[in-house]
Amino acid sequence: MEKDLLKSFEKYLLTNLPKAESFHPYFEKALTEMLKAGGKRFRPYLLLTVVETYEPLLVKNAFAPAAAVEYIHTYSLIHDDLPIFDDAHLRRGHPTLHVTYDEVTAVLVGDALNTHAFYLIASAPLNDSVKTKLIKELSINAGVGGMVLGQAIDCYFENKKLDFEQLKFLHIHKTAKLIAASLKMGAIICNLDKETEKLLYDIGINLGLLFQIEDDLIDATKSSHEIGKPANNDTEKNSFVNLFGIEGTKKHKKEMISIIEEEINSLHPVLKTKLQNIINKYFK
Amino acid sequence: MEKDLLKSFEKYLLTNLPKAESFHPYFEKALTEMLKAGGKRFRPYLLLTVVETYEPLLVKNAFAPAAAVEYIHTYSLIHDDLPIFDDAHLRRGHPTLHVTYDEVTAVLVGDALNTHAFYLIASAPLNDSVKTKLIKELSINAGVGGMVLGQAIDCYFENKKLDFEQLKFLHIHKTAKLIAASLKMGAIICNLDKETEKLLYDIGINLGLLFQIEDDLIDATKSSHEIGKPANNDTEKNSFVNLFGIEGTKKHKKEMISIIEEEINSLHPVLKTKLQNIINKYFK
Repeated sequence: MEKDLLKSFEKYLLTNLPKAESFHPYFEKALTEMLKAGGKRFRPYLLLTVVETYEPLLVKNAFAPAAAVEYIHTYSLIHDDLPIFDDAHLRRGHPTLHVTYDEVTAVLVGDALNTHAFYLIASAPLNDSVKTKLIKELSINAGVGGMVLGQAIDCYFENKKLDFEQLKFLHIHKTAKLIAASLKMGAIICNLDKETEKLLYDIGINLGLLFQIEDDLIDATKSSHEIGKPANNDTEKNSFVNLFGIEGTKKHKKEMISIIEEEINSLHPVLKTKLQNIINKYFK
Repeated sequence: MEKDLLKSFEKYLLTNLPKAESFHPYFEKALTEMLKAGGKRFRPYLLLTVVETYEPLLVKNAFAPAAAVEYIHTYSLIHDDLPIFDDAHLRRGHPTLHVTYDEVTAVLVGDALNTHAFYLIASAPLNDSVKTKLIKELSINAGVGGMVLGQAIDCYFENKKLDFEQLKFLHIHKTAKLIAASLKMGAIICNLDKETEKLLYDIGINLGLLFQIEDDLIDATKSSHEIGKPANNDTEKNSFVNLFGIEGTKKHKKEMISIIEEEINSLHPVLKTKLQNIINKYFK
């Protein structure tokens, strides 16, 4: 079932790529390259899973907003990979855009995908009231109230120590809010009550934090293996492991899983099972 | 009247700046700096002038979409000023963002303003059907179907000669489409008939081209004075002057003015006068 849903979504995504027709020799190719390169499609999956649970007949109508979230995520990766940010050379198994083409192309492709996300929602086969709510939700969580602010904090404090509350604030904004928005956008499409909407958003925030905690643990463990010294000493970077140590972070992770498992209890049993599957697959 | 309209809009803009509250020492300041720095507000003025003419009671409701266009324009300036683009140090009389802060901040502020433009429209006091249409119109003309594509072409062909049709395509996309969208968005807010909507869009395209022609002429004349050699030999850059010479470009400009003056004839007489004033002020 999950696989079918993701497969249909992938087909939608790849047959509805943005067009940028012109005599520019490669801009359209560059524009679509990272979308075609794959990825887990985790955020679209969350949005579509909510819709599949509560309003299965609306799943296809929800493909456009699900794609919009993926466009936002993809543009953020393209900009984050730039030399002035992470200077990454590989993404989704492909050379990054500024490596294949140049930095100018990478900045502009990111800009275009960011803007086009909102075109996708505005053109979706959904009613206007739903579309307006979706755009509001996505834009605030992806922009000044979420992802971009988180990224700005991450960059500024790269070599400055953050306390626990600050680190949480960073990751809630940089990562968790787009995940939370994805779940809430599913709720908006299904016209669920405000309480469920909020619950799904809160679950998304905690799921986003859990992802970051797990990331930090993987990083630390990998470092231990590869560098052969205690991981929580090997870097000054802001991470849960550097704040709490490996054991402390593992404990924190367990607590977070308990909180989420408690939260998903009040959801539709089908959605509960699907979210539980995500937890089991990625975090257990 | 024009001054009153722009004054109220300016007040709206400055009292509704985006918030990005956090412990980041300057991100919110950087985010709002270029919006506060002024500018002609030409695109908002066009949008608001249409609304003021046809539906004066809706002018205040149109402030948010007018601001959205200004946000898009401002983000494009911030990204265009980056070292990998124009490497500009001054904008609107202030040091550019990457000079005051750094390139990371400039990229992220641009990203945030791009996204927030759509939040502004989605939150505007207008009905959902109008808001959806506005978002569709703005996103396509600012993104892959317009401004960003034009910018990509401009950068790629910086040192490669374009023919007339290609040069026109470039400027229609890079500059004219956002101006055209501004006028059309005014029409959408007033629920004007499709014919007037299209006419306003077409006028915007020609107005955008006229601006570029004038820009090229000013550039060429300035060069003649300053460098003391014929302007149309002094640079290899793609411009109307380099294609047609100064006299040819002046003739082209006159023809363009005639076309626009013909087009505005079928508009509401008040709007016709206001657009004629723009032509007289900037191009005669």
